[in-house]
Amino acid sequence: MARALRLAERGRWTCDPNPRVGCVLVRDGEAVGEGWHERAGGPHAEVLALEAAGAAARGATAYVTLEPCSHYGRTPPCADALIEAGVARVVIGAGDPNPRVGGRGVERLREAGVAVAGGLMAEAAEALNAGFMRRMRGGLPWVRCKVAASLDGRTAMASGESRWITSAAARRDVHRWRAASGAIVTGVDTVIADDPRLTARDVDGPFLAPRRVVLDSHLRTPTEARLLRDDGGVTLLHVGEMPPREQALVRAGAHLQQVAAGDDGRVELTAALRALAADEVNEVLVEAGPTLSGALLQAGLVDELIIYLAPHLMGHEGRPLLALAGLEQMSQRLALTVTDQRRVGEDLRLIARLRPAEEG
Amino acid sequence: MARALRLAERGRWTCDPNPRVGCVLVRDGEAVGEGWHERAGGPHAEVLALEAAGAAARGATAYVTLEPCSHYGRTPPCADALIEAGVARVVIGAGDPNPRVGGRGVERLREAGVAVAGGLMAEAAEALNAGFMRRMRGGLPWVRCKVAASLDGRTAMASGESRWITSAAARRDVHRWRAASGAIVTGVDTVIADDPRLTARDVDGPFLAPRRVVLDSHLRTPTEARLLRDDGGVTLLHVGEMPPREQALVRAGAHLQQVAAGDDGRVELTAALRALAADEVNEVLVEAGPTLSGALLQAGLVDELIIYLAPHLMGHEGRPLLALAGLEQMSQRLALTVTDQRRVGEDLRLIARLRPAEEG
Repeated sequence: MARALRLAERGRWTCDPNPRVGCVLVRDGEAVGEGWHERAGGPHAEVLALEAAGAAARGATAYVTLEPCSHYGRTPPCADALIEAGVARVVIGAGDPNPRVGGRGVERLREAGVAVAGGLMAEAAEALNAGFMRRMRGGLPWVRCKVAASLDGRTAMASGESRWITSAAARRDVHRWRAASGAIVTGVDTVIADDPRLTARDVDGPFLAPRRVVLDSHLRTPTEARLLRDDGGVTLLHVGEMPPREQALVRAGAHLQQVAAGDDGRVELTAALRALAADEVNEVLVEAGPTLSGALLQAGLVDELIIYLAPHLMGHEGRPLLALAGLEQMSQRLALTVTDQRRVGEDLRLIARLRPAEEG
Repeated sequence: MARALRLAERGRWTCDPNPRVGCVLVRDGEAVGEGWHERAGGPHAEVLALEAAGAAARGATAYVTLEPCSHYGRTPPCADALIEAGVARVVIGAGDPNPRVGGRGVERLREAGVAVAGGLMAEAAEALNAGFMRRMRGGLPWVRCKVAASLDGRTAMASGESRWITSAAARRDVHRWRAASGAIVTGVDTVIADDPRLTARDVDGPFLAPRRVVLDSHLRTPTEARLLRDDGGVTLLHVGEMPPREQALVRAGAHLQQVAAGDDGRVELTAALRALAADEVNEVLVEAGPTLSGALLQAGLVDELIIYLAPHLMGHEGRPLLALAGLEQMSQRLALTVTDQRRVGEDLRLIARLRPAEEG
């Protein structure tokens, strides 16, 4: 299963919006075939492993990171393929949360007399497809929020100047996160202030370019924004109709999508993320200013904070890391669990999750 | 020499204001005696090693972390003791910066026909006594400045509430830094706001209690401050004379010392540190608010920043890590070199030095 997980990992950059899946066929203690899912529409991991094994698949055990599918999607069901090839036993990492699979793959295998075991290295198998799982189960993407600050927690100098806070190595690291994401989300104020491109650059190997998404309630994105000049789609999520602005932005190459407004008359954050999930986005990387990042975090919509800390001091008049409303007392501070901590170039990178309030 | 350095390290908590020194005597490839300096007034490392070796010292090589002394101080000169014992060769880690030694120990040994080599593991030997070296050479102590903040760089909530930012493990770690320091320095505003004790508590093994020093230009320390109630000396550094306040504070147990005022009419920071060095303080731990810490840092008086980062977010209205004046552009930000980075309990601890301005 460990090998199957490593194989599945190879699909991280290319198999969107499908889950990453790996499969290893073992007979008499020997691997006789393996495969991983590379691209939506391309063959599934199980099928590739069966092809590689040929006749050796008969009587073998299949280790699959995700429950084999049982429906006709872009390809025929893998459960059937395993049965036909005479596989004797299937060991599964994680159950498929896809409502079109959801245990039916297992059922189908069992009905055909194939022994099935589940939950081997389930935690790693779940984490591998955190976004896909979240989208299938809850209609929301997995959201990572990237922030970069000096050691004194500042994202820009008092003057507003902010390039570059982190080292080239950290910026390359961000491009890798971008490449592994289905969408990069920012706010219109960041587009106006920094005119970012938000493309994944300097990334080795093939990857699917993430779509770029701007929360732009009132369509204030400038038509000359660099975002619109680069290749790859740009989606502006807005509220209400503004025909002249809409036309100008569509002519400039933007894709416009209307979503529900919140009480403040701006894009409702949950609605915006649901719209992305509905569009088959599994993993979102938020690269926004302190206001939008802080609001997403406080709304409980951020799954992982990716914090880059540069070895600098930018001063107490610099701009804050996150704007967090209503924190007055120590009891109200937000507690994080740091799940990963490492040096990236000369910077420090922390990956953290918000701890549920009851844990303090 | 590595062994001698480890021995010397044992004196970290107790040998103030003397340097930490270790000595190993080796004859025919075998250690025949070792010693370390435990307490001012007590025997030096070389003398203890010679005692342990007895007759075996004759013809041996002495590895000493610091140049042996050649003057009558609290004890007779060690250079003479090595010569009398018939030691054939002395290998030295760091030269003694004490103007009363400064090469004369080496001279004396050579005149007596003892072979002398210097500079073995010199960097570690220097670092071991950074404070002593600094004081002997420049009349200033080695200054560590401890700060603790949330990951978004805040030292207190918007309400001012700040206890506790860090975990119990980090606070224990701070007590160890305190115990290894000759003085803990804070500002009078911190005394008024937090009423800290600044004693070293929960520390295993014996140590010399650090003196506690308050920069209190106008003698505003309350006579009922907890600082004055605890055992161990408290020094208030002030400017000008204020007889009634002085009398009240002396009655409350404080030691008062007048130092030069700066242009702002407050204690001049360099003068304050010089006063501590003159009083045989090797290592200072600053535990103050953002204003004093920031001012010391910007004056180039901080040798090491000890930064504890707690896995929390305290919000953009929280108090800043350091008040740093006049930082407007990215080119003005202060660059740090992180020399150590580790988890302490659930917090992150960084040790950093200010990079000279020309290195950016």
